[in-house]
Amino acid sequence: MSLKLTILGCHSATPRTFAHPTSQFLEINHRFFLIDCGEGTQAQLRKYKIKFSKIKHIFISHLHGDHFYGLIGLISTFSLLNRESELHIFAPKGAEEIIKLQLKLSKSWIHYPLFFHELKSKKSELIFEDDHVQVTTIPLKHRIYTNGFLFQEKITERKLNIAAVLKQPEIEICDYQNLKNGKDFIKKNGDIISNKSLTLEPPQPITYAFCSDTIYNEDIIPIIKNVDLLYHESTFLDDKIELAKKTKHATAKQAAKIANKAKVGKLILGHYSSRYKNLEPFLTEAKTEFDNVVLSEEGKVFKVENDNG
Amino acid sequence: MSLKLTILGCHSATPRTFAHPTSQFLEINHRFFLIDCGEGTQAQLRKYKIKFSKIKHIFISHLHGDHFYGLIGLISTFSLLNRESELHIFAPKGAEEIIKLQLKLSKSWIHYPLFFHELKSKKSELIFEDDHVQVTTIPLKHRIYTNGFLFQEKITERKLNIAAVLKQPEIEICDYQNLKNGKDFIKKNGDIISNKSLTLEPPQPITYAFCSDTIYNEDIIPIIKNVDLLYHESTFLDDKIELAKKTKHATAKQAAKIANKAKVGKLILGHYSSRYKNLEPFLTEAKTEFDNVVLSEEGKVFKVENDNG
Repeated sequence: MSLKLTILGCHSATPRTFAHPTSQFLEINHRFFLIDCGEGTQAQLRKYKIKFSKIKHIFISHLHGDHFYGLIGLISTFSLLNRESELHIFAPKGAEEIIKLQLKLSKSWIHYPLFFHELKSKKSELIFEDDHVQVTTIPLKHRIYTNGFLFQEKITERKLNIAAVLKQPEIEICDYQNLKNGKDFIKKNGDIISNKSLTLEPPQPITYAFCSDTIYNEDIIPIIKNVDLLYHESTFLDDKIELAKKTKHATAKQAAKIANKAKVGKLILGHYSSRYKNLEPFLTEAKTEFDNVVLSEEGKVFKVENDNG
Repeated sequence: MSLKLTILGCHSATPRTFAHPTSQFLEINHRFFLIDCGEGTQAQLRKYKIKFSKIKHIFISHLHGDHFYGLIGLISTFSLLNRESELHIFAPKGAEEIIKLQLKLSKSWIHYPLFFHELKSKKSELIFEDDHVQVTTIPLKHRIYTNGFLFQEKITERKLNIAAVLKQPEIEICDYQNLKNGKDFIKKNGDIISNKSLTLEPPQPITYAFCSDTIYNEDIIPIIKNVDLLYHESTFLDDKIELAKKTKHATAKQAAKIANKAKVGKLILGHYSSRYKNLEPFLTEAKTEFDNVVLSEEGKVFKVENDNG
């Protein structure tokens, strides 16, 4: 049970040499996801030595360039590298049309299975699920249709209480899976040993919420309640709170208010406007509302481990 | 009369941290042109401190990603920077449709005048002309419709032979422009002083030919004959001559053969396949055919000056 989040880019608007637009690579419960794909993301993936073959699912929050313009290049590169495995893109309506038009006009045929999953609901919905992880949308309020994404580990098994199990000579290794699945153990004489006395509660599922771009919006709080890690955009400082409202972005303090109200474990700030050369005030302003807050920085890795076994 | 060419990217296919796809910034006779615009070009322009406002004309050779995927980001950034001046894009059919679809879907309205000039002729044609420079296409043979571009200074004036002019007390400063325009000088007594005795031949116009991407194709030789500077793609070394033919690219030796037959001043190689870690063999192989050859490298600047005054 673990999460590892690598920040590939955390700035807003235009890419610069040392300020890449939004993209994150998430490893959660042995599954890998790319979140947003601003221009230059493929070069950032190489820089931070993330294997392209790990990426099978890409989530695009919205179609503004600083979250999306790197996608066509990445899709093309996968093709040049003779990718064979499936690639699934979860993105708003329009992404498929843009990508397919570009591929057609450049006569670049994609030889691997490429699937688009069009997002259009304005309500939170489950969009991906396997036996390890589920992903639901977080409807955000921005200038165009935008979703955040909530990633949740799925807990399928209890943990063995090895000390208790070893005290029962009748329990064999082949019984372990039944115990993990929650079943009681029945001895040859018919006595029942309760599952609870042989196993431990499973670890709490780790959760990560990605929220960019959005105006301050308390409607998201029930969806992101108690997540371990929240990335919430903070394009501006409080000196630009009116501009934030006008452009449908948030300030660092507003992001921290959301974190506080949602009682999250840790808040990561990002999507900084290029007007700010010094990012420390983002931390200072956010800390007035919520203490466990950090700045995203290119290449920074955030880890969460949660294992009671 | 001068040319300054800055290489922003000179590698083929996929962008990597230290290998950017094709883009060049050309300054010729006080005019500025961006040639091709692979992903990451806007960050490269910033890195090499080229002012965005200088760019008023962009030439796109073809719609493969490594020459084109950076254009939408650059166009959007110009808008974010509140550009007001005209921008002219010379590109194959389809570029306008792609760019406009992306702008529409991201609800990004461009407030400056943006003009697309669709290239579709298979013959060399004049596509840009002002009083300083003219640009003609060089039809190339690649997997999709592709043009190179020939940039030529326009010479409008002869140079004053200052020593000869100062010997004629009747000639005043207000007469200089007539002399530069080729007119003879008529003295008060009716004597004629020939223009040739008062002026010098104008400097030879500087010429630059950009040829990427293309198979080996001698048809371009008459168009690029005697240019001062030729950039010719060299995706492969001679060990991959069959692959070059198949993918409609050229080898370093083939580029040099073209340079030799066209009697150009200097050849610049580029568009290297990522399979080659060491680029020196490109130079070695090319030199067997043409001596004045150099490698393009990111950030490298090539200058040509031509002034007999």
